[in-house]
Amino acid sequence: MKIAIAQINTIVGALRTNSDKSIQYINSAYEKGADIVLLPEATITGYMALDLLFNAEFIKDNIKELHRIKENIPKDIVAVIGFIDEENDKLYNSAAVMQRGKISGIVRKVKLPVYDVFNELRYYTAVSNTKPVNVNIKGKQVHLGVQICEDMWDETNNNVTSRLASEGADLILNISASPFQVGKKSVRERLVSKHAKENSIPFFYCNLIGGQDEVVFDGRSLAADTNGNLIHISPSFKEELSVIDLEMIDPLSTLTPSMQDQHEDIFNAIRLGIKDYIVKSGFDSAILGLSGGVDSSLVAVLAVEALGSENVTGISMPSRFSSEHSKSDAELLANNLNMNFKTLPIEDPHKSFLALLEDDFHGKSRNETEENLQARIRGNILMAFSNKFGYFPLATSNKTEMALGYATMYGDMAGGLAPISDVSKTKVYELCRYYNELKGEEIIPLSVLSKKPSAELSEAQYDPFDYDVVSPLVDELIENGSTKAQLLEKGYDEDTIDKIIFMIKKSEYKRRQAPPGIKITTKAFGIGRRMPLINHYNGI
Amino acid sequence: MKIAIAQINTIVGALRTNSDKSIQYINSAYEKGADIVLLPEATITGYMALDLLFNAEFIKDNIKELHRIKENIPKDIVAVIGFIDEENDKLYNSAAVMQRGKISGIVRKVKLPVYDVFNELRYYTAVSNTKPVNVNIKGKQVHLGVQICEDMWDETNNNVTSRLASEGADLILNISASPFQVGKKSVRERLVSKHAKENSIPFFYCNLIGGQDEVVFDGRSLAADTNGNLIHISPSFKEELSVIDLEMIDPLSTLTPSMQDQHEDIFNAIRLGIKDYIVKSGFDSAILGLSGGVDSSLVAVLAVEALGSENVTGISMPSRFSSEHSKSDAELLANNLNMNFKTLPIEDPHKSFLALLEDDFHGKSRNETEENLQARIRGNILMAFSNKFGYFPLATSNKTEMALGYATMYGDMAGGLAPISDVSKTKVYELCRYYNELKGEEIIPLSVLSKKPSAELSEAQYDPFDYDVVSPLVDELIENGSTKAQLLEKGYDEDTIDKIIFMIKKSEYKRRQAPPGIKITTKAFGIGRRMPLINHYNGI
Repeated sequence: MKIAIAQINTIVGALRTNSDKSIQYINSAYEKGADIVLLPEATITGYMALDLLFNAEFIKDNIKELHRIKENIPKDIVAVIGFIDEENDKLYNSAAVMQRGKISGIVRKVKLPVYDVFNELRYYTAVSNTKPVNVNIKGKQVHLGVQICEDMWDETNNNVTSRLASEGADLILNISASPFQVGKKSVRERLVSKHAKENSIPFFYCNLIGGQDEVVFDGRSLAADTNGNLIHISPSFKEELSVIDLEMIDPLSTLTPSMQDQHEDIFNAIRLGIKDYIVKSGFDSAILGLSGGVDSSLVAVLAVEALGSENVTGISMPSRFSSEHSKSDAELLANNLNMNFKTLPIEDPHKSFLALLEDDFHGKSRNETEENLQARIRGNILMAFSNKFGYFPLATSNKTEMALGYATMYGDMAGGLAPISDVSKTKVYELCRYYNELKGEEIIPLSVLSKKPSAELSEAQYDPFDYDVVSPLVDELIENGSTKAQLLEKGYDEDTIDKIIFMIKKSEYKRRQAPPGIKITTKAFGIGRRMPLINHYNGI
Repeated sequence: MKIAIAQINTIVGALRTNSDKSIQYINSAYEKGADIVLLPEATITGYMALDLLFNAEFIKDNIKELHRIKENIPKDIVAVIGFIDEENDKLYNSAAVMQRGKISGIVRKVKLPVYDVFNELRYYTAVSNTKPVNVNIKGKQVHLGVQICEDMWDETNNNVTSRLASEGADLILNISASPFQVGKKSVRERLVSKHAKENSIPFFYCNLIGGQDEVVFDGRSLAADTNGNLIHISPSFKEELSVIDLEMIDPLSTLTPSMQDQHEDIFNAIRLGIKDYIVKSGFDSAILGLSGGVDSSLVAVLAVEALGSENVTGISMPSRFSSEHSKSDAELLANNLNMNFKTLPIEDPHKSFLALLEDDFHGKSRNETEENLQARIRGNILMAFSNKFGYFPLATSNKTEMALGYATMYGDMAGGLAPISDVSKTKVYELCRYYNELKGEEIIPLSVLSKKPSAELSEAQYDPFDYDVVSPLVDELIENGSTKAQLLEKGYDEDTIDKIIFMIKKSEYKRRQAPPGIKITTKAFGIGRRMPLINHYNGI
């Protein structure tokens, strides 16, 4: 028996496009001799459609497409397709099993996630149990244990997988939309292996690929044999049709679980996130401010790798406080990347704002007001270029800055996407070094990586943080949810902990108005972290 | 038996403050001879604490406060207090019934809402059933049928209320955090009456008051007798302790259900929403741009009513395209309101931006770029005043504009709160007229209400919409979820419907970065409407 895994890139709402692509992949799978083909969760609607699911026409249209697929695929292949089923005004996240122009069975999702970015109980009704779907493959009855994404993340006794096996399933087929997150690939491998081994059943896992809003689905579909050995791993971050012949497994060739390769994975996740967000939004080019600093340098690199150097424009917008090396570093980076580059000094609008405000601000001492003013002039220029030339504007804040509120709303926070807002300051440096190593040359000038971080918004200003302490501390608080007691035990200074917690809490309002980012960690700012704006608790 | 309803204004996270206020109100209730006192849902933590609930210290601290309250209130009163209970790592939205320094019973919430702004299944576990709590009042056993908010919104057969009644409850006591929404007060009255009548049981309903992030809780607590007659209605939008003597009800004096008084309610809801958002954020004054248009005029009026005229500053920021009457109308309004006012013409920064961009924009025709530029210069000035003087910045977009994307990100959308972003253009006019009538004079100059709407961002520019058609059409689409077929039947033109749907969908990215608004309708933009940013469906 041959099983095909079609990890395709769907688009939320693109019912016809997603269905046409499904038909095309099912045909290819058939041509390659597959008996069964799996497509990802919510194949037809795309994932996550959120409140679009409340549109009754949308649900009807998704069911029409399901039937259109059924009628336009070869009769001799079994296709497992994700769609949204409806019955008595209730919605079910479902998989349809099709064969011979008919729907042989519909399986509904048992486990509906509501943690982090997920909110499925807002939309769907859970079912308490499922049964295998019987199909005929080359004259033999085969019982397919179909399940959907979270159903696999159930390790209780009597879990979804073991119940399907005990109901007589011959194979487990899981269709998923599991977002990328550092370290998650090993967890998925462990789960697929474990379920396969515990139930002595082959396990096939088809995961979505592509960027959708704040998440990137990494694909990396899997298969395991009845001993729990991994027998297949699809590539990450690209569409792929893989066909696995269950009769042809050489036990010696089974794969060992993945080693972590964080930098490559993070880089590729963000690259795909940028590309899909921009292209699916109808843009083909991007613009960003280049300060000569490490954050904008990394975003430039990622944008060039996502869109091509000819489609990315960097603007250096020096003020009276910008150092010579910042200007030259920005230009050198742009030249190294072969991207479009221009310089627009902000001195004139800067002067005119200061003059306009002079009377009212007379006698008040200089504070962050004058700094934010410059950042917002830059934001305005960036948006003007975006509006005039149709360039998609990219913001360059990193996660550590976003946590601390060390960023200007409507200034450097301006943009349609903030690609590195889930990347800590420490990781920003690591990714820059990773890229230079990958390319074997100093694409990002070494001076960018070695100079002291500065916003250059006033005389001799440097970032008021020791990032070696603060960057991991923010990660501890946000990603690990560490308590103060735990952090003290790890050796963090109490005053620093209190100050950082206070800063994170105080800047919640800024993050509320931030552009969407690309999630790469267990906890990104954005839809997966829903903190109150008014919050008088002495903690986060 | 005397039952007190303490509808207090809590603050999310202010555990100690909320508890101290609870103790104070319980003492007052006791002094007024009450046997039982009700406080609102989640009394101790405030509502809605969102992901703060994932902080284990926060939950522990809330339970500590519960016990502190218990030990600091008179022994001879029964207090029903909302808190978050925890057991085996599961959280329960709960009510504690206290008497004689002890907790007589804990009741957990049965119905956990996940629609609109609610997301309780993300945090809490539901219980399937509850039992009355027995207390001793003046030597007699009384069975309290305690329930929490949504438990009352259950009209199925065998609903939460009827089950409590059949389990022997003598009274129903519902503690709630039900946000204001036009028309909701009648629904609550109907539900309280219906449950009381159907079960021949007195029903007491205590609702939270106060603004929290995007919602305003309106209070307006209720009581009904065993015939379902309303015997008490607390005031809307203010803290109040009411004591109802069950033995002293004169059936002739029972209250008739409320008539709608939309304008007064909406005005008061937004006023409280502004005040609480700003004050709970630690500010005491506000600033906004005054264009001489109807939207900024209404926001100025609301801000002055919320904070006092001495605490509100309006800035007129005329450009080369501003008409004389816009400037004079802005000043006249400010004078009528006795608020602070200043004029800062944006011509100089405007000119300097145009000069800076001249070379790059050469040969490109004028488009929205040049318009957004001006709006963003104004946003920058507003934010500079906010940063320098600590004024809270208010944005002035209305719901119709926000729906259509007829607003500039980082420009007129800049601010910490957008008070009228859930008020349609039609309602903006109505509220202005309501205010002038209330005051008996033209506080808002008639010319503001009679002139043709214009953003004045280019020569002889007027808003490209017939708001008489478009404003209700947007409400049909967003608030009523009307389908195209339904709208055609109502007489809307097909091209207009398609165009408006397209514009709503296309501008989702702007709303994603908008300041929080104040919800007054069934469906506001913000946390209660979670649409995908990437959305290729031909609908919303």
